[in-house]
Amino acid sequence: MLNVCLIGAGGVGTIAAYVLEKSQRCRVTAVLRSNYTVVRDHGFDIDSVDHGQIRGWKPHRVIPFLSSAPTDQPYDFIVITTKSIPDLVAALIPDLKPLITPGKTSLVLIQNGLDIEHSFASAFPEIPVLSGLSMIGSRTTSPRAVFHEDPDQLRIGPYYHHVDDPLPRSTQLEAARTFVEAYNAGLSDARTIQKSGAECVLAEDIVAARWRKLLWNGSYNTICAVLRMSVGEVLSSPGRKTLLEPAMREIAAVGTAAGYGETVTEDVVQFLLKDTPDTSPFRPSMLVHLEKGQPLELEVILGAPLRVARAKGVKTPVLDQIYELLKVVQWHLLRQQS
Amino acid sequence: MLNVCLIGAGGVGTIAAYVLEKSQRCRVTAVLRSNYTVVRDHGFDIDSVDHGQIRGWKPHRVIPFLSSAPTDQPYDFIVITTKSIPDLVAALIPDLKPLITPGKTSLVLIQNGLDIEHSFASAFPEIPVLSGLSMIGSRTTSPRAVFHEDPDQLRIGPYYHHVDDPLPRSTQLEAARTFVEAYNAGLSDARTIQKSGAECVLAEDIVAARWRKLLWNGSYNTICAVLRMSVGEVLSSPGRKTLLEPAMREIAAVGTAAGYGETVTEDVVQFLLKDTPDTSPFRPSMLVHLEKGQPLELEVILGAPLRVARAKGVKTPVLDQIYELLKVVQWHLLRQQS
Repeated sequence: MLNVCLIGAGGVGTIAAYVLEKSQRCRVTAVLRSNYTVVRDHGFDIDSVDHGQIRGWKPHRVIPFLSSAPTDQPYDFIVITTKSIPDLVAALIPDLKPLITPGKTSLVLIQNGLDIEHSFASAFPEIPVLSGLSMIGSRTTSPRAVFHEDPDQLRIGPYYHHVDDPLPRSTQLEAARTFVEAYNAGLSDARTIQKSGAECVLAEDIVAARWRKLLWNGSYNTICAVLRMSVGEVLSSPGRKTLLEPAMREIAAVGTAAGYGETVTEDVVQFLLKDTPDTSPFRPSMLVHLEKGQPLELEVILGAPLRVARAKGVKTPVLDQIYELLKVVQWHLLRQQS
Repeated sequence: MLNVCLIGAGGVGTIAAYVLEKSQRCRVTAVLRSNYTVVRDHGFDIDSVDHGQIRGWKPHRVIPFLSSAPTDQPYDFIVITTKSIPDLVAALIPDLKPLITPGKTSLVLIQNGLDIEHSFASAFPEIPVLSGLSMIGSRTTSPRAVFHEDPDQLRIGPYYHHVDDPLPRSTQLEAARTFVEAYNAGLSDARTIQKSGAECVLAEDIVAARWRKLLWNGSYNTICAVLRMSVGEVLSSPGRKTLLEPAMREIAAVGTAAGYGETVTEDVVQFLLKDTPDTSPFRPSMLVHLEKGQPLELEVILGAPLRVARAKGVKTPVLDQIYELLKVVQWHLLRQQS
């Protein structure tokens, strides 16, 4: 059995914990924060396109703090499915240290955005860091309920931060393969019984996949948040031409300068602009977080690609101002929390 | 007695109507829209720093539509104190026509923004157009109640749209002088009894005064609206340096290119940045309109100076994006109204 610690049991994390245990290859210790007591006593209720209706499900172990994670047995994987906010990452790293056994443990980051791996790879240079990108329509509807409507499509790839000593590429790739196989075992019923299209893929180049996802997140997600409008409202407004399209092309230009021109093509831009109907009521994650008074994943979604833009000399006049505005929004959200 | 028709009895217009009648030189016909019935039956209640407490006050005549304005006697002044929105101006002009007697009537526009006079001067080239800029802290608190807390400081000047035939400068200046004298007569008690600092000034160059006011309105007013934050919140946020200051300097650069460099100086910019405490809860007009679901005065406050910027080749990277964002907000507000 693989020993797994999973941090952040929201919409993505709870389904991941469920899948890993369903594989019968993993035992999951889930770190819950606000919902620890209610989940310990009653478990999760899950309504899932992949797994059907599940009532009162609990992972192998639930704990209230990362610092209370048992270390009786070393962990094979520490899976992080929290939001990616710089302050949160900085606070997490010291508590991860006692749970890491070099030669045994790998980190698995299943998070949005760009350059999320760097802080972890710097803090723990001696272990594999696996980088995961989840496309899943899944959200919490109460502290112990998850509604999962679009199939779980997960890409996992190694973030090669050493190419030789002390961590050979083969070790990093092997860790990714082990995780992907376990996850896929947990999706077996979803594929054969629910036929939902769920799958976990070993990604050759996860950074390319991140750039592709950024085309959407850097434009739709940020602009819907600044305007406080749904995707459909922005698409049917004059902002489609004046803001959304230029913003998406700015991301494409930065991605191209970063070496991912074959991924962030004009065809993909056109597809992303035409894929969504302009009646869509969808409110992207930043807008949802803003409306709940929670911090935005601003640095990994917009700050990181704009730092690449500056380094490569790419101009991003629309995104520059969207970023400055959202930094003020973020400041306001953090001030209200404290 | 001067025969005056006043359109738009909100915070500014109601006080103007009161002042003009108090002068005992004017008889005011006020065009009320939504509040016609309640004001006809009960009059206005005014709490004023300039005029004290007034209960149940009515202008000489109130009417529900501009098209119902009596034309038994020609009008000396038609005073427009509505919001300045292009669609509203376009709708107003045909109804003004029957009320205008060339050689007798002048238009008086008491409105925010830049280039508000052009549409009226084009439609009525044969009459004086007086351009007025009001600095008054006055707002409606119910359909028939006005709360007026900062003294009435009004600048009026001719908008010289002919320099000779058929409308000599002297005629235009004379019309302005007549209006200013009547208005000041109505402020006499405010100055001698309340000692409030109220005054109406004949402005030599009203366009310069508009540029100075735009330094504030083009920056604070627009940025507070996009961010949905008070003046104090923006001032204490990182947006003070990244958005507010650059935006104000962009307006100053455009104003300078337009020939008003002696008005929009760095000293004035510094004064406007330091004049307001960063605890101020003040919500500028665009934010108030946005929160009420009403259209914004976007074109006269931001569209007009940015058209000057384009004509003069001045770069305005911050304001360009603020403008595009607010155009989408305006589109959304208008769509919700219809």
